[in-house]
Amino acid sequence: MEYLVMLPGPTNVPNRVMNAMLAPVINHRSDDFRVLYKEIFEKTQKVFQTTGDIVLLTTSGTGAVEASVVNLIKKGDKAVIPVNGEFSTRLADLIDSWGGQAIRIKAPFGENPPYEEFEKAFDQHKDIKALYAVYNETSTGTTVRYMDKLGELASRKGAFFVADSVSILGGDELPVDKWNIDVCVTASQKALAAPPGVSPVSVSARAKKYMQENPPPTAYLNLKRYFKYQEEHFETPFTPALPLYYAFREALDMILEEGMENRIRRHRICADAFYAGLNAMGLTPFAKPDARSNVVIAVNYLPGMDDKKFRGLLGEQFKVLVAGGFGDLKGKVFRVGCMGEVHRYHVMRTLSSIASAMNMIGVKANPEATSVALDRLKALN
Amino acid sequence: MEYLVMLPGPTNVPNRVMNAMLAPVINHRSDDFRVLYKEIFEKTQKVFQTTGDIVLLTTSGTGAVEASVVNLIKKGDKAVIPVNGEFSTRLADLIDSWGGQAIRIKAPFGENPPYEEFEKAFDQHKDIKALYAVYNETSTGTTVRYMDKLGELASRKGAFFVADSVSILGGDELPVDKWNIDVCVTASQKALAAPPGVSPVSVSARAKKYMQENPPPTAYLNLKRYFKYQEEHFETPFTPALPLYYAFREALDMILEEGMENRIRRHRICADAFYAGLNAMGLTPFAKPDARSNVVIAVNYLPGMDDKKFRGLLGEQFKVLVAGGFGDLKGKVFRVGCMGEVHRYHVMRTLSSIASAMNMIGVKANPEATSVALDRLKALN
Repeated sequence: MEYLVMLPGPTNVPNRVMNAMLAPVINHRSDDFRVLYKEIFEKTQKVFQTTGDIVLLTTSGTGAVEASVVNLIKKGDKAVIPVNGEFSTRLADLIDSWGGQAIRIKAPFGENPPYEEFEKAFDQHKDIKALYAVYNETSTGTTVRYMDKLGELASRKGAFFVADSVSILGGDELPVDKWNIDVCVTASQKALAAPPGVSPVSVSARAKKYMQENPPPTAYLNLKRYFKYQEEHFETPFTPALPLYYAFREALDMILEEGMENRIRRHRICADAFYAGLNAMGLTPFAKPDARSNVVIAVNYLPGMDDKKFRGLLGEQFKVLVAGGFGDLKGKVFRVGCMGEVHRYHVMRTLSSIASAMNMIGVKANPEATSVALDRLKALN
Repeated sequence: MEYLVMLPGPTNVPNRVMNAMLAPVINHRSDDFRVLYKEIFEKTQKVFQTTGDIVLLTTSGTGAVEASVVNLIKKGDKAVIPVNGEFSTRLADLIDSWGGQAIRIKAPFGENPPYEEFEKAFDQHKDIKALYAVYNETSTGTTVRYMDKLGELASRKGAFFVADSVSILGGDELPVDKWNIDVCVTASQKALAAPPGVSPVSVSARAKKYMQENPPPTAYLNLKRYFKYQEEHFETPFTPALPLYYAFREALDMILEEGMENRIRRHRICADAFYAGLNAMGLTPFAKPDARSNVVIAVNYLPGMDDKKFRGLLGEQFKVLVAGGFGDLKGKVFRVGCMGEVHRYHVMRTLSSIASAMNMIGVKANPEATSVALDRLKALN
């Protein structure tokens, strides 16, 4: 049974990308593989808008996020990080457990801390090694809207700037070099619309130099090894998840065929239609207006909307998958992925199913909501 | 272009397993996924012959091997390990770099150290935490033939017994519980004949207890997190490589349909045919007779057999992929994977292509070699 996968990742994967996985097995120590890997490297650079290095890890997004910690942070190193959701909390905790010292700039869930607090943190601590930011907080549907300023600040202060862009890269603005991002990590199964299992990481020249001179005491996420194999042979040090590499190349092709600007515009228009349609139904976003994400839409439940019943109906009767809330937000919000393939069809079918499910559990939804969304979707033409 | 993939992994993947990857994307936080994961869990237990826990990592085999180190070894912990090839060298080095103290029992490449040396090591050091062994050394085509005795020794001495079984599980004897193996790691793309990218790990009750009480300061390979998600929901803590999970389940089904005993017998007979056929051609195995592997066959080059030319001909003209040597063995041996789907066809086509390639580069091969192999393959009936 095929679902419409409106999760905040994994998301719907185009057939063209799925079918690419069936390409024959090759030797990952041969020219066949080198051609494939070089193509992925160069196309990923374009999608990341960077001339930096690219590493493709066979891991989930968490593996790539961990690589950004274990390759940069040493015992006692200070790292500033905004914390306003589940994933930024996890990242800060990982920095601490790895022996670093996370300096948390906290904000209530659904909001971003004021930019000025980062300036202050850098003034208070003279020896900050890195600034980490979760660009899109998947758990709350919020996006940091001053990444460019954070990059400028980190660069000015001589700190590394690390962007956890797992759920957003490919679905919103993210010019890695222009924003001075030293390490940018994402995952295949989010806005890039490939199957889960591979996670690309970009690394600036100065971060690469640091990692090469100060490798971690581990193997699998040790980026120095990836740089070495890449430079010597355009290979990976460890056996790559070949079918997922083929799929990822196909997904990159689709992205570059559409063009990054068109793709980001499409995500914005679809998000706008989602927010407008949901608002017309009487539903409110969890995130504050200036922090709302264009790729993950977190929605507050109305009284009477039971999470299990509501999402159960959506999945079983309408075959539409949306996600529940994390931790404290469990049962309080549902989350809709607006990423990857998302287009008119995805928005309209999802909103229509949400309206029907609401009515079925006795919460009246304004019948005009889909017309409101359709009106916003006109901008796609 | 389809190759006959006679590498020591990745290996040929049956179409049935490849096609399983096309199953629809589902929510990895849903009952759909729980059913899939539970099936994989139980079928993997059968293949591993264990009642212990199973974790399926989205990594290459190296990721799983590293998990066996970072979840067991603490600063200063002593670990005994036989070292007789590239992969056992790497594992010993990883134990050291992670802060442990590897006690290396060395043997020349192609041989195993005498079992008695392990008894001695345990007598010399009273505080050995773990005994690690690479069951099949992929780089040299050797197999440790006293794993049962190592398990018995470790168990008697109260040490954990860890088996790196990456290139062998599914292709030779490996009763995990019977041999007292606390942690057994393998990878999907070797003798289990699935695509690369997922790596199963089995963990005994006492190793699990230790890991739960002493988790490492990292996230992605932290098995405590996997146990928690498994026990609470039968989920993975991080997004799984879904298409590879579907493929892996299909591969497990094929293994259980054939039966482990039949499967191991088939590997033995095919290996026997390979060794006999190669011997008839005038080629000798790199490994000493009592250490020869049934899943990876390393063969010494004859004078005049240039690695690049020979393997180039095999690949380009006969579409048969075999591997070269590692490190010091580069240019001195070639390695043939005898794993997974391997059957009459694979042996005969590979031997015939090797004979033709030898003749083409001016090294006469005995034309009777394929008949010799065919004779051994009769045992398959």
